[in-house]
Formats: sequence, structure tokens, C-alpha cells
Amino acid sequence: MGSYVNPDGEFDRDTNYIEDRILANPDAAGLRKDDAVGTKYGGWLDNDLSEDAVAWPVEANRYRLVAAPACPWANRTLIVRKLLGLEDVISVGLPGPTHDARSWTFDLDPDGKDPVLGTERLQENYFKRFPDYPRGITVPAVVDEPTGKVVTNDFKQITIDFSTQWKEFHKADAPDLFPKEHIEEMFPIMDRIFHTVNNGVYKAGFAGKQEAYEKAYNELWESLDWLEERLSTRRYLMGDNITEADIRLFTTLARFDAVYHGHFKANRQKLTEMPNLWGYARDLYQTPGFGETVDFQQIKDHYYIVHTDVNPTQVVPLGPDPKVWEESHERADLAS
Amino acid sequence: MGSYVNPDGEFDRDTNYIEDRILANPDAAGLRKDDAVGTKYGGWLDNDLSEDAVAWPVEANRYRLVAAPACPWANRTLIVRKLLGLEDVISVGLPGPTHDARSWTFDLDPDGKDPVLGTERLQENYFKRFPDYPRGITVPAVVDEPTGKVVTNDFKQITIDFSTQWKEFHKADAPDLFPKEHIEEMFPIMDRIFHTVNNGVYKAGFAGKQEAYEKAYNELWESLDWLEERLSTRRYLMGDNITEADIRLFTTLARFDAVYHGHFKANRQKLTEMPNLWGYARDLYQTPGFGETVDFQQIKDHYYIVHTDVNPTQVVPLGPDPKVWEESHERADLAS
Repeated sequence: MGSYVNPDGEFDRDTNYIEDRILANPDAAGLRKDDAVGTKYGGWLDNDLSEDAVAWPVEANRYRLVAAPACPWANRTLIVRKLLGLEDVISVGLPGPTHDARSWTFDLDPDGKDPVLGTERLQENYFKRFPDYPRGITVPAVVDEPTGKVVTNDFKQITIDFSTQWKEFHKADAPDLFPKEHIEEMFPIMDRIFHTVNNGVYKAGFAGKQEAYEKAYNELWESLDWLEERLSTRRYLMGDNITEADIRLFTTLARFDAVYHGHFKANRQKLTEMPNLWGYARDLYQTPGFGETVDFQQIKDHYYIVHTDVNPTQVVPLGPDPKVWEESHERADLAS
Repeated sequence: MGSYVNPDGEFDRDTNYIEDRILANPDAAGLRKDDAVGTKYGGWLDNDLSEDAVAWPVEANRYRLVAAPACPWANRTLIVRKLLGLEDVISVGLPGPTHDARSWTFDLDPDGKDPVLGTERLQENYFKRFPDYPRGITVPAVVDEPTGKVVTNDFKQITIDFSTQWKEFHKADAPDLFPKEHIEEMFPIMDRIFHTVNNGVYKAGFAGKQEAYEKAYNELWESLDWLEERLSTRRYLMGDNITEADIRLFTTLARFDAVYHGHFKANRQKLTEMPNLWGYARDLYQTPGFGETVDFQQIKDHYYIVHTDVNPTQVVPLGPDPKVWEESHERADLAS
């Protein structure tokens, strides 16, 4: 994802994405009214589109999800695809962890090319869609296989649409990641987690000034304390079942001790020192669909090698030992 | 202390110091035979001098120990001075944590000058001694108050001489930091701790290449595992009593979680995750003479602000919480 530090030394995430969507019912798509009074959750769950965005049809074996395992935002999509059983209808391309200034690349694939798209750099697929694409080349991105064009890189919408638009292809026992009874509570929770945790660690780590760092650090730990408390009585964030909110928190927790604690100075405690969060993180890690998408070496390589402004030597730490993720937990006892 | 990274990316510590000594019996000083066959411990404990070095007389209220609390090598001298009760005969000057490329400075003192030496920069005292002094301006340094000249900055020798040469001024119940019965075992232990732990963390943190980092990291953790085991049956490194070896290990442990774990990538575990080492470190911290010389804020400021090659933004982490150092320990039960 793109980034820059503003004059106050705060990290601003580029939030302009390609907002096309893949819809079960593209002909019925309306115009999204994100800012209209009374529109809840920014229109994420409805069938509408942003202005100038295009609706693409849900279709098996047409789209390729390009998602670097190193990236927490991409990691979400890999988990959701597995949990919902979409592996056989949406293919996946896996860029290596150490993209350069221009693009994520398919450097781990034979001959350095994605075997389906045939491209070396994800940038080529962005340029096929918009020859003068001016923003960061980000993952996750969904690419239309026949044309090689990026359909969308709107990471918050991609997983929602996997849940809501691709239902006809879900496996029989797929979880409901957006359960109706929790929707109203879930979105504000995910919003707080996004600003203070998922993106909060970046704000701390990329802060160019002490004050900006301390603000992000304090917000991060206030939220982690709140989550630690919340998870003392709930197995998952919304209760007994895994929801999208858990996936979004998990990919940050998986990177916490390996990267954010040291590299981003989120060092009040290690995740392993927060008993409920740590038990919760292990519980998810050990759930099919989660742990197998986590590659700690790629995660460390990504942050420590790519962020030369934070780690000029590009030396990648050897610690900590990821074996602790396999230790048992007693979270099942929390189920009501 | 001075530093550079050699072509293999390894950190080499400048080991050329001003090797003058302050001796109880300066007239009896001989020529040190460091490299002579059969000379044990490099002549540290005898009454001899290196070639071209000068013997100064032990004398109350003549010398000023300049020792920045941030620096682990200087921290040793502050502890030994207190343990031996030399506070009333050797004065102390305390440079601030964030020296610049030229020198440690007295920026925390009124008007930015050491109240006794009258200098703003310790460099001035080095230049009074050697107008063309070519090496790093390091702490600890012992300065002759009447002339303002640096007598010695040989950090390994300074604490030894506090123990062996200043005996007439020791307090009545001063500990014997070099007990005869442990000398033969102690020096090789201190030597291993120096190369792999005290300086080992620097080798890891300043490594310019992955291979050099991994070598230092592996040697560091091999030694910490050995110490963890050794301290499972001994309250202190040499048994029931504190020795110089403990002081030398302590000042590295005190900086471990606050700095070395993240900033120097010594991140297999935190010190708090090594039960024996952590209990041992707290035991010492809570012993009069130790904890009061440790200033965690100055320690963090020093490393994170001075090492712009490791931390370009100079942002200083807020964590971890040093309150854990006050938690109880059961180390006294280990006394035989």
C-alpha cells in the first residue's frame, strides 16, 4: 500500500482505490450514497457503486486474487477465500515479500512471472487497466484473467464482496462472517480497530516526529487494552463465532511480535504478554484457513527489507521464535 | 565509545584507550607485559603500566569521574563507585544522553557546563590532555580536576583500579569485587560476556550485513542460554556474593528490553522471558548501588537519538514499562 508522512510527521494512508466491484447482480447496481445522511457503514454491504466505478459479474474461474502473504491487508483476503471455500473459483497469485519502489513482483514464481497472468510486476496489470495509473501498486488486487486488468484493489470491499456477492460458490458449511445480529455493533468495532490497530501500528512506525508517534502509540495501546478486556469474556470479538472483525484484527496480531513490536516501536508489551489477545490470536492461528496463510519469514522480510527509511541496513531479525503460535489455548472454554 | 563497521559488515570496537592508571603506589609501577607468556588476565590486577602510560597517585578529591548514565560502560563505574563507598573521594560528572558526532556534552548541567570542570564538552578535557587527540571521545573518563586533563578512559581498568588501588578509601563493609578464590574462573567468564553479550549486542545492532548480524545474534543467545543455566543454581555469577562480573553483565541486562531487543534486533526473547536472568537482573537492580544508577529514559534517548544510522527518525519508543524492575524475586533462596 502507498504511504507518505505529512508535514506534522504523521503517516497518511492513501485511501483512493479502484472501487469497481464484482457483484452477483451487476445489472441491479445503484449509485452508492456514502455521504448521505442515514447511510450506515458507508454502503459496504449493499449493491451500489461509487461514481465512475464499474460492476463486474460474479463468475467462477474468471478472476485472480493477487495477494502477497507478507501484507496484512492482502492476508485478510487469503483467509476469507479459504474460510468461504472459494479456492476453486477464485485463483490466487502470490507476489514475493520484497517489492521495490515501483511494484509488488512475482519474483517467487518460475521465471519470475505469475503463471496465469504472465506478468512480472503487478504494475503491468494496473497499467493494462489504467495506462497512467498514478497511485501506489497495492495488494490485494483482483485481476480479470482474460484481459489482465485490475478490477479492484479496494481491500475493505474485497472481503465483504467475497462474503456477500459470491454466496452461490460458498462451501456448504461456510461461516457467516457478517451475521445480521452483529452488524450494527461490528462496523464501529472494525472501524476503531482499523484506525488505531491495523493502521495504528503503521502510524506509530512511520511517524517522522516524536509527537505523532506518541499519539499513535497511545491510541494503539488504549485499543489493545480495550480488546484484551473484551476478549476476557468472549471467544471471538463478536461472541461465539468468527466474523470479519476477527480476520481484520488477526492479520495485525500475527505480525505484532515479529515486526510491529520492534520495527514500528509498538513496544509497551509483546502480544505474548497480553493473555487474552494472545490466546485469541493462537486460537485463530490454529483454526483451518488462518495459520496456513501466515508466513513469518515473508512477513519479516517485507517490512525489514522494504522500509529502508526505518531500517537502513535491511538486516532482518532472527527472532522471535514462531513456534509459540502452536502452543495450546483454552479459548474454547469461553463459548457460551 | 567510538565505532565503525568493517568491510564485512561487522562492528569493530576501537580498543585503543588512554591507558594511564591511578595507583596506590605509583612509584612502584613496572612495565606491563600484556603479551608475555604466562601473564594472566592481561595484567589488569597488577601494579604495572602499558608502554608510554603514566602512573597518577591515588588522592581523595582530586579526580572526577565523567560517566554518562546512558552508557553501559560508564554505568559500570557509577555502580562500583557506589558499592565501594567512593562517593566522597571521587566526584562525578554526568553528561547528557544525546552526544553529537564530536563529544559527550554537559548539557544537563546549569549553563551547559560541568560545575567542577567548567567545560561544555568532554572533548575539551581530552584536548587539554592531548591537543590532537584523534580517537572517539568516550565515557567513562577520569579527569584530573586541577588541570582538567583526562587521566584515563580505559573502561575495563577503571573499575578494577577502584577495587584494587583505592582500598584505603573504601567504606568499611565494601564488597570484595575480585575475590581471590574466584579470580581464575572470573576473568574468562567476563571475557566471554564482553565479546558475546556486552559488545555482542552492539555487533548485532550495528551489523551492516545479514551474515554479520546472524553471527553476533547466535553468539549472544548461546551465551545468554549459558548464563540462564548458570544462574539457575547460583544467586550471582560467582556464587553467593556480588563480583565485578555481575556489574559488567548487569549494565547490559538493564538496557536489554528497553533498547537491545528492538533497536539492536536482539529479539529472540525479552529479558523478562528468561526467568533466571530476569530474576537475577531484578535482584541486582534492587540492591543499593545498582538501580539508582539506571535511568531508562536517558538510556532510550541515547541509543534511539544518537544512532541515526539505525533509527533515522530519532523517534524514541515509549515502551516498555520499567515498573517491572521493581517486582519481587526469590533469588535470595539460591544462597548456599
